[in-house]
Amino acid sequence: MENIIIKERLEALRKAMEENGIDYYLIPSSDYHNSEYAASFFQTRAYFSGFTGSNGTLLVGRESAGLWTDGRYFVQAGKELAGTGIRLFRMQEPGEPTILEYLKEHMTKGQTLGFDGMTLAAKTGIEFARSLKDREVRFLYGRDLAKEIWKDRPALPCSSAFVLDESYTGKGYAEKVRAVREKMREEGCSLFFLSRLDDICWLTNLRGKDVACNPVVLSHLLLTMDHAYLFLQPEAVTEEVATHCKDNDITIMNYHNIAINLHGYVPKGDVLYDRGNVSYTLFMLLQQMTTSHGRKLVNRPNPTTLMKAVKNETELAHTRKTYLEDSALLTKYIYEIKHNAGKEEMTEYTAGARLDAMRAAREGFLDLSFDTICGYAENGAIVHYKAKKEDCKRIEAKGMLLVDSGATYLGGTTDVTRTIVLGRISDEMKLHFTKTCVAMLRLANARFVYGCTGRNVDTFARAPLWEIGIDYNHGTGHGVGYILNVHEGPQNIRWRMTPDTQEAVLEAGMLVSDEPGVYIEGSHGIRIENILEVRDVAETAHGRFLGFAHLTYVPIDRDAIDASRMEPSDLSALNEYHAQVYEKIAPLIEEEDIRNWLRQVTSPIEI
Amino acid sequence: MENIIIKERLEALRKAMEENGIDYYLIPSSDYHNSEYAASFFQTRAYFSGFTGSNGTLLVGRESAGLWTDGRYFVQAGKELAGTGIRLFRMQEPGEPTILEYLKEHMTKGQTLGFDGMTLAAKTGIEFARSLKDREVRFLYGRDLAKEIWKDRPALPCSSAFVLDESYTGKGYAEKVRAVREKMREEGCSLFFLSRLDDICWLTNLRGKDVACNPVVLSHLLLTMDHAYLFLQPEAVTEEVATHCKDNDITIMNYHNIAINLHGYVPKGDVLYDRGNVSYTLFMLLQQMTTSHGRKLVNRPNPTTLMKAVKNETELAHTRKTYLEDSALLTKYIYEIKHNAGKEEMTEYTAGARLDAMRAAREGFLDLSFDTICGYAENGAIVHYKAKKEDCKRIEAKGMLLVDSGATYLGGTTDVTRTIVLGRISDEMKLHFTKTCVAMLRLANARFVYGCTGRNVDTFARAPLWEIGIDYNHGTGHGVGYILNVHEGPQNIRWRMTPDTQEAVLEAGMLVSDEPGVYIEGSHGIRIENILEVRDVAETAHGRFLGFAHLTYVPIDRDAIDASRMEPSDLSALNEYHAQVYEKIAPLIEEEDIRNWLRQVTSPIEI
Repeated sequence: MENIIIKERLEALRKAMEENGIDYYLIPSSDYHNSEYAASFFQTRAYFSGFTGSNGTLLVGRESAGLWTDGRYFVQAGKELAGTGIRLFRMQEPGEPTILEYLKEHMTKGQTLGFDGMTLAAKTGIEFARSLKDREVRFLYGRDLAKEIWKDRPALPCSSAFVLDESYTGKGYAEKVRAVREKMREEGCSLFFLSRLDDICWLTNLRGKDVACNPVVLSHLLLTMDHAYLFLQPEAVTEEVATHCKDNDITIMNYHNIAINLHGYVPKGDVLYDRGNVSYTLFMLLQQMTTSHGRKLVNRPNPTTLMKAVKNETELAHTRKTYLEDSALLTKYIYEIKHNAGKEEMTEYTAGARLDAMRAAREGFLDLSFDTICGYAENGAIVHYKAKKEDCKRIEAKGMLLVDSGATYLGGTTDVTRTIVLGRISDEMKLHFTKTCVAMLRLANARFVYGCTGRNVDTFARAPLWEIGIDYNHGTGHGVGYILNVHEGPQNIRWRMTPDTQEAVLEAGMLVSDEPGVYIEGSHGIRIENILEVRDVAETAHGRFLGFAHLTYVPIDRDAIDASRMEPSDLSALNEYHAQVYEKIAPLIEEEDIRNWLRQVTSPIEI
Repeated sequence: MENIIIKERLEALRKAMEENGIDYYLIPSSDYHNSEYAASFFQTRAYFSGFTGSNGTLLVGRESAGLWTDGRYFVQAGKELAGTGIRLFRMQEPGEPTILEYLKEHMTKGQTLGFDGMTLAAKTGIEFARSLKDREVRFLYGRDLAKEIWKDRPALPCSSAFVLDESYTGKGYAEKVRAVREKMREEGCSLFFLSRLDDICWLTNLRGKDVACNPVVLSHLLLTMDHAYLFLQPEAVTEEVATHCKDNDITIMNYHNIAINLHGYVPKGDVLYDRGNVSYTLFMLLQQMTTSHGRKLVNRPNPTTLMKAVKNETELAHTRKTYLEDSALLTKYIYEIKHNAGKEEMTEYTAGARLDAMRAAREGFLDLSFDTICGYAENGAIVHYKAKKEDCKRIEAKGMLLVDSGATYLGGTTDVTRTIVLGRISDEMKLHFTKTCVAMLRLANARFVYGCTGRNVDTFARAPLWEIGIDYNHGTGHGVGYILNVHEGPQNIRWRMTPDTQEAVLEAGMLVSDEPGVYIEGSHGIRIENILEVRDVAETAHGRFLGFAHLTYVPIDRDAIDASRMEPSDLSALNEYHAQVYEKIAPLIEEEDIRNWLRQVTSPIEI
């Protein structure tokens, strides 16, 4: 059956393409800042193709159209694209061309490729330009053709920004900007252009609600050695924000005028920017700005990213407290789930919603830090599972439920995974659970010399699983923000690096997740995740040694622990962790029955 | 007191510099191939400065001279340079300029820097040229000024080369060169220039004795798609070698004519070479050769290096057998040392010489694979210790003796370290020994997914030492050659990478050393080293898993094992290893008393 709606939309798009002399029009899935989640305003690709997955790029030619997406979405895309005439390109399948390969094959000399360069990563645009150079392809990247066509397009998100008090941030803007300018000086630059939202929020101590799950404000920042220009949507600027900016000598500019302002700007020296964190359009403007005035563009990781990653004492104190409270909340939730499974009607969706509601009811709650993953039985094996209300599993008194969740509170951003035993489970599941638990604790208790990165320490977590021929197809850990994005860099814990991934030395004060797992397709999934704080632990004649301290204190389900498969030291580590869970969490739980239960499930296991 | 001899030599050098219009003359420490050990022919720096350490660069100006060396040699260099007028520059000490910084400060526009570009690594020369560009410094790199001055200079090494039979190499030249040409094709090159000696020996199945401890032949190789030109010293070419080359369509050229041949060569296409493994002079010739004929120079790691590193079944079979025999030899040696210490007169030097003699007496012995390290008591803490005959420690019936040694036999190149207990030792020493033993065995027994490099697995060895605040300031392991250099790449096992170090995926068939250690300055040093073979161990739904098999089977001294400081699994691993040592080595030992002793020292330890 034909999909008339999509066909009509594509027809309108092709008409606009013709009017603009565009032969191929590219529609990526990003917002203006390559944020982890793009608001509905940016769902242009879904509007023109019908495909609603989180990752996909639409390429529309005068006669044909294609959509590229990854393995997670082949089935869904196949259904959603039916009747649209859009061909599905399965990314990374053998023989399937990439978009770039497709363009190289189909575009002819002098043709024009159009796209909204504000939504394309600079790196991608640069790669396209380089690869299509010998085709003499013209790039028209200044026009968002959806603007005219998409009549009922949702508005660009625009929350009221707010100021985080120094009692939360520990450092004022003045102190932070001094450090950033020091870095600019080191790089020989007199201007720094920053377009990464969480970095801008960290530096200015502002927060907002413009990206789902990320308490950030749509913004750009232009920083000179003595002044700052902060580009905000006028509607975001409350009186509090205006005063804060005025007090800090920050000039507020209109977010929508960034291009015109960059275009007219005369830099007094070289310009620092981060190619990995800027859109193609703004990159091109920066390039024109510098070359036309004889200046250089200096491409470095935003200096703000590392500064933001190393938390100060105030941030750490709030984080520790917030994690204890969130741990107590999750502990209660686990008690509830374990006691109600099989007795009450419960689905993956309602179980997830219940947890979200508990968090939302807490004082200081700002947002979830990501969509709660609540996967029962074999759905636990789907790493990025999202239960649909109308189409998800009923939870029964058997097997295991994997819950990965977190929230941003005024006090910190949390992230925690527990796999909850609801009834009888197999010996294999117990083995997998036990080894996952050992994996998580081995990394948490590791000591390492200063200079190590996540590549060096990742093996601590994987070794006990590798021993039994198991591996998990995701990183062991990511950096965690403070009242900001739950995923932040530059640090991470991964054994394998791609040319795109960063590698950063682990510094005291960084937060990282520690989340090994076992995923057996069609059977069960296990993940146990604590957030750890990197700490100095010893200074000896042989060097400076770092380690981790737990931030998360939630019982690990002993119903799935097979102590006979653990080394004595691993069992001690689990018992020691559980003793701390009880000591720290019991005082935060008023209900006596839950406290009693907690004492029981955290008491030492003996072989 | 003035060092008249050195002063006269420097005077002669300055005269030659003046005649050649050279303002500064640089004398590095390398041979023409940047080999690990430079023959006495190449000891020009020692000749002109008096400094005999293994690492040092001499820079002679018209009025002044400086010598750069590293921390190992500050004391020695201070003594040896006394009275020469040469200033000592302590490398990596704060405030001390590097050679390049010194040159940038002192050389003025239009001055000339002279050096023998055949003995300078291309990378260094290129860096110098780049950094001194704005000084408009002229480089005169074609003249070895020592030639005229150093009258009694030793001859360039020139052993008779010999052919390794295919029963040893497992692969003939024809099969190897086919694979190399395949790589040339992949890189779009029609010519490959190879100047790395062990790679040439691997490819041509030739061996020699031109570098100390490295059974290689001074040579270069120019490989086209259908022909090969092998540059050898005429005296090295035996009839066997001539026939071998003729049979394989390899044209023998004169080693001394490499420059003139590169100069006149007309390449038919782009040229493959490895910038990290060629001298500055030859790099410049390659550059001129390509640019003057409109060809490109393609800089890649020599494809031969990875091919050589992955041993074939024939090489592995010989290696395994050779390691067992060498292990039996070392086991006997340990028995002897433990029984004679305190009874016989013995020094570090005589103990080392005794072991060398035992090896030299074996059939198929070619050379030691490196100078034996025999360090008693606190000398064990000096990683690259070399006992001097007249000035070394007497060995008594107390403390520990560290012996790191190996040889190249017709059948393989060995490398093994054992730390031998000679009497009473402290509890701290026992702890350090026990943890070193655990470290070695943890890595040896590790399993890891395919794709891991030495950076990922290094932590297996370090973790048990890091736990007690100890680290060792060297890599955990290096690649090991087959009837070739004991140190070879591309693989290694190190947690920290510098821009210069390589990182290579561990492949089944590679050999690596596993040699953690504890070094307590002024007190004691412990190192335990086995050589491991990388093996496939399992293929599961989660991936391909690799692991190691021991090649070395020598008892680990249980007199220093404190089993109470070991995990049960670590103790099992040690007992299991010792059971294998007995099973494999006892049949190779004729002496009943040693066999009985071996049974005893390899019997299981119980807590």
